[in-house]
Amino acid sequence: MTGKLYGVGLGPGDPDLMTLRSVKLIAAAEVVAYPALAGGASFARSIAAEHIPATAHEIVMDVPMTVERGPAQAAYDAGAAKIAAQLEQGRDVVVLCEGDPFFYGSFMYLFARLSNRFECEVVPGVTSVTACAARARMPLAARNERVTILPGPLPEAELRLRIEGAESVAIMKVGRHLAKIRNVISDLGLLAQATYIERASLPQEVVVPLKDAPENAPYFSMILLTKGADPWL
Amino acid sequence: MTGKLYGVGLGPGDPDLMTLRSVKLIAAAEVVAYPALAGGASFARSIAAEHIPATAHEIVMDVPMTVERGPAQAAYDAGAAKIAAQLEQGRDVVVLCEGDPFFYGSFMYLFARLSNRFECEVVPGVTSVTACAARARMPLAARNERVTILPGPLPEAELRLRIEGAESVAIMKVGRHLAKIRNVISDLGLLAQATYIERASLPQEVVVPLKDAPENAPYFSMILLTKGADPWL
Repeated sequence: MTGKLYGVGLGPGDPDLMTLRSVKLIAAAEVVAYPALAGGASFARSIAAEHIPATAHEIVMDVPMTVERGPAQAAYDAGAAKIAAQLEQGRDVVVLCEGDPFFYGSFMYLFARLSNRFECEVVPGVTSVTACAARARMPLAARNERVTILPGPLPEAELRLRIEGAESVAIMKVGRHLAKIRNVISDLGLLAQATYIERASLPQEVVVPLKDAPENAPYFSMILLTKGADPWL
Repeated sequence: MTGKLYGVGLGPGDPDLMTLRSVKLIAAAEVVAYPALAGGASFARSIAAEHIPATAHEIVMDVPMTVERGPAQAAYDAGAAKIAAQLEQGRDVVVLCEGDPFFYGSFMYLFARLSNRFECEVVPGVTSVTACAARARMPLAARNERVTILPGPLPEAELRLRIEGAESVAIMKVGRHLAKIRNVISDLGLLAQATYIERASLPQEVVVPLKDAPENAPYFSMILLTKGADPWL
């Protein structure tokens, strides 16, 4: 009997935004695995920390944040091999994922490598999109409204095209793309409707109008834009 | 001292996909409020049922599912008045919301009516979008991919336009719009990449290729479409 692979969403950062199911799986885990910034801390592990059994075996995947995909792919290859070795010995492995595993989550890289060989279950989590909306007090969509989710690294022309045709917009992974994104939103005359959020739900959270956003945005930052014609009454 | 209003996301239906925070708030609630289909059961209440104190006062908002907005608006007006009366007496009120309160959630209508007069906190929840992706084993987006969320009641021409320009697509509230949506996806040559999901995470869950979807889809059904060029390796 091989073990089962779990990809467990942990939500945006506040440990209280973990689901009951994720907590139960982590608390019962023999083996947990998670990504870490190469040489640095693991955000995923920090969210789940209080539930990880002291006896659990931990597999750390040091993932370099490079533009080229090769180094990260090698890190997931190595992590997948370690996880597979545990699964082959009949142990379940719980992979910790910030947010939701299938929504810009690194678990997708492990799923692609392992789900054809091992039983696998994905446990969804609260995404940063709705966590940011809650903290910014910005309802995203009702009735027949559309929501568009865009990664901040997209080229300026594509961001412009996609925002222009959109209703509510969430722009993920703002980081060093902040100035470019703000220019696009400003050019479209939408600056007053945009909010900048970093580290939603964590003690260091920042929520400000986009025009007041800090010059240096961290990777875990987002811009929400609602065209807000509908007062939702 | 007036009470505090909480809009609490309960996730897609499996009570284990509630967050720790939502469970704590509900378990400590003096007053809970929730929508119900006029004359019928409340899906929100059924998700949270085991955590609602027997002593809690319950406010039921019977919301008619009509195309015209007037009857639903009147139901939210009446519900907001009952909630306000409790808040004015200093009691906190926990409003139960399927999914996430600000993502096609009925809490938005209460937020619009009450948040300018009372302290209000929104607790995000797992959305049906990522719950469906997990159950359908369909990663939604990685890296610089876009996600588009569309309500099924949109006109056929608009659905076509939005799906054509999209990468990953989630179509919400499929229900009686199933045949129209399937025609659009089929015309665009994308039928093989589309999955139909109803009641994700519940015992009655259905996950099938869109081509095999049942003729009668319930309101809580979704179509996921990923163009899937990227193997996420």
